[in-house]
Amino acid sequence: MRRGMDADEFRRLGHELIDFIAGYREGIEGRPVKSRVSPGEIRARFTEGPPEKGGEAGRIAELLEQRVMPGITHWNHPRFFAYFPSNTSYASILGDLVSSGLGVQGMSWETSPAATEVEEVMMDWLRTMVGLSPAWTGVIHDTASTATLCALLCARERTTSMCQERGGLAAEDARLVVYASDQGHSSIAKAALLAGFGRENLRLLPTDDRHALRVDALRDAAAKDVAAGLRPCAVVAASGTTGTTAFDPVAAIAEVASEYGMWLHVDAAMAGTAMVLPEMRSLWEGVERADSLVWNPHKWMGVGFDFSAYHCKDPQHLVRVMGTNPTYLRTAHDGQVTNYRDWHIPLGRRFRALKLWFYLLDVGVSGIQARLRRDIANARWLGGEVERTDGFELLAPVALQTVCLRHVPAGMDEAALAAHNLLIARLVNDSGFAYLTPSVLKGRQMLRVSIGAERTERRHVEELWSALKAAAEEALSR
Amino acid sequence: MRRGMDADEFRRLGHELIDFIAGYREGIEGRPVKSRVSPGEIRARFTEGPPEKGGEAGRIAELLEQRVMPGITHWNHPRFFAYFPSNTSYASILGDLVSSGLGVQGMSWETSPAATEVEEVMMDWLRTMVGLSPAWTGVIHDTASTATLCALLCARERTTSMCQERGGLAAEDARLVVYASDQGHSSIAKAALLAGFGRENLRLLPTDDRHALRVDALRDAAAKDVAAGLRPCAVVAASGTTGTTAFDPVAAIAEVASEYGMWLHVDAAMAGTAMVLPEMRSLWEGVERADSLVWNPHKWMGVGFDFSAYHCKDPQHLVRVMGTNPTYLRTAHDGQVTNYRDWHIPLGRRFRALKLWFYLLDVGVSGIQARLRRDIANARWLGGEVERTDGFELLAPVALQTVCLRHVPAGMDEAALAAHNLLIARLVNDSGFAYLTPSVLKGRQMLRVSIGAERTERRHVEELWSALKAAAEEALSR
Repeated sequence: MRRGMDADEFRRLGHELIDFIAGYREGIEGRPVKSRVSPGEIRARFTEGPPEKGGEAGRIAELLEQRVMPGITHWNHPRFFAYFPSNTSYASILGDLVSSGLGVQGMSWETSPAATEVEEVMMDWLRTMVGLSPAWTGVIHDTASTATLCALLCARERTTSMCQERGGLAAEDARLVVYASDQGHSSIAKAALLAGFGRENLRLLPTDDRHALRVDALRDAAAKDVAAGLRPCAVVAASGTTGTTAFDPVAAIAEVASEYGMWLHVDAAMAGTAMVLPEMRSLWEGVERADSLVWNPHKWMGVGFDFSAYHCKDPQHLVRVMGTNPTYLRTAHDGQVTNYRDWHIPLGRRFRALKLWFYLLDVGVSGIQARLRRDIANARWLGGEVERTDGFELLAPVALQTVCLRHVPAGMDEAALAAHNLLIARLVNDSGFAYLTPSVLKGRQMLRVSIGAERTERRHVEELWSALKAAAEEALSR
Repeated sequence: MRRGMDADEFRRLGHELIDFIAGYREGIEGRPVKSRVSPGEIRARFTEGPPEKGGEAGRIAELLEQRVMPGITHWNHPRFFAYFPSNTSYASILGDLVSSGLGVQGMSWETSPAATEVEEVMMDWLRTMVGLSPAWTGVIHDTASTATLCALLCARERTTSMCQERGGLAAEDARLVVYASDQGHSSIAKAALLAGFGRENLRLLPTDDRHALRVDALRDAAAKDVAAGLRPCAVVAASGTTGTTAFDPVAAIAEVASEYGMWLHVDAAMAGTAMVLPEMRSLWEGVERADSLVWNPHKWMGVGFDFSAYHCKDPQHLVRVMGTNPTYLRTAHDGQVTNYRDWHIPLGRRFRALKLWFYLLDVGVSGIQARLRRDIANARWLGGEVERTDGFELLAPVALQTVCLRHVPAGMDEAALAAHNLLIARLVNDSGFAYLTPSVLKGRQMLRVSIGAERTERRHVEELWSALKAAAEEALSR
């Protein structure tokens, strides 16, 4: 019987792969940011079926290089400006390694008390790091999408006084309504649909010229819905929209939420990290009045994916909605301890708190703050360049580290501008030199530059800016 | 500005932690299986707030030993017989390490084509490994709980012709009903409640004397619900219940499902791994007629948590239910490629396929099969011992690797037997020598022994059996 590698082979291969990762990251700047493979190209390298015999672990590094690396888009590249920063710091890689190596299941307190209690400590540290009051309690989720679904489920159950314990949503007389802005993340709509609200009961409201939710629109919509016999149930405020990092006015939204008895969920997935800087906290003023809040230390903060922080005010309600209590999961300390399995959808859970702890030991809060200030300064620099350069325009205020711009040569209508800017994005992205996200903001095609990879210095932003200007020239000449 | 560790420090600490993991696993048998700390004891070791300065990564190993290790319950211990086997093989630790080190976000094909395509290959390998036809397509979830929620959401939307795109569940006239057995996992009820069906519309049906769903009860319940104006929506068949690894009769359930147009989801979370053995596949005969299927290679198979395999027949329907298409997520190859973000609840995703691939390279399918046969033989041995020992009884057939037993001294009523067997469990578990799960089966307190940790040999099962008999004696003498 083939037993798998022994401890010595694990040591040898483990050291080899640690060195592989270090070497990969040291040399990352020389790689094309976005993978250049075609659809099916990686799959085609797997011509065999599942290995029958085994004994091939010694080939892992070689197979990785041959089959996997050409298909990697390098999220840790210093010229990765697409989507959102999703970094993996060295320290958090080590935290994840220990989590994998211990292989504990933190579903209940008893199944590894340390997994639960270190998570409690880390969630409390995060709370203080972004300046939240002790009224908040936290749990780690995989992603903000999942956390927002949980928030809307909690809202649904609070508004209906726990309809899930009776006939469910279909037995409710009144339709429940969810509100967000038309700049809210797609996960809000997805969560509302999955939670059973229905698209007709989802209001994606207009935003102002800074792309923040218009509170008058929220108030009008809620009043109209009530008049029509519907029940306002939840509003999701974005602290940093995906498109432009716009900040919805949380305090004013909280007023409306409280008037109508709505659940207020704050989606700060990317921008929550900014609140580690005291000077940024005015951007989410009113957050203390929310019922739930999600932000992703695995984005801009530098903790390895997946680590999404969900804080809420009423964990007992959360457990009422998410908890189960079968005999095979009961333990002697139930009632005295936190059983995180009852705080979210999955039952099993990794020991994810380690990767935050190790990271904080390594860089400290002051290290994170320095990095965030660097990124914000870099974004402001780029925003300034765009503003003062003929033929380019900023499409949104630079609130944090995201810069939304486009090239606007004279004489092009919107359709031509869209094609032109899409071409610029394609030239830059296909070159492998840098990677940004083409997106559409209220009908206008934009080039969205999200700054914040761990290794992104001013030099890389300058290089991107040169590449963008060159691509604009080239696009014009085609 | 504190930059965090450099590549050389990462190499040094990485090697140190690889050695720590190897040493931990080599010496694991000397540790108490279940952690002995009291509630709050680990938390109390964190007296400081989040570190301000950083620069302490060099203390990671020391802090781990001091603060974390005493709070670990050792799932990889060879005398871990609780819950379910959740192993982390050396090879899959390495796969996870590379996943963390590359730090890719596999949300869309373009964001790392290899993350998507290697996952496609691995899900297809898994399909062939358990003998499923090419009609199935797969995606990796974190846990079976989440996958089952997705299955019930797909069922809800198929039955209602996509009510989420209209007024949602509250706008539906008919109530939808979900069926499972009273031995089904708690995640089924949880999923049904979260999906909005409501507890009144969840039927947990009686089982036969082998603890499998009674098809006559299913047929009666569905007929009665239809007569009452309700709509049968989904049935979840357990291929291996949590309590006793009982197998619901999938083929017969599929008949009823097809008669009533119900979605059939098969929950094979723990026991799906058994189907890597061709001689076991008759246990889930009829599985090809299901709509969806979940099993956890992170349980008995030896892939590190989290890796739950969800296979379904109609991925287009799945994407209709779970998909979103905001402009900032559109890419050039959409339509030609798989964007796994649309296949489940989270948006971001780790490169989890690596840990299965590395594991298969290391042990091969034949290595997995040999281990499973070893565990089944060990369970049968223990079952035989229980049967032939006066004063002990088996409470359920030993279908796979789970043995459900209790001590039944003469003259005790059910209440006394429950207290007595709970005491036996406590004596064994608190001794640190072994760890099993006390649970209740149809009103009878049982000792549930789940065999299948990577290092569990016959010797360890023999040692458990001796410990159980000794604890029974001791419990009697108290």
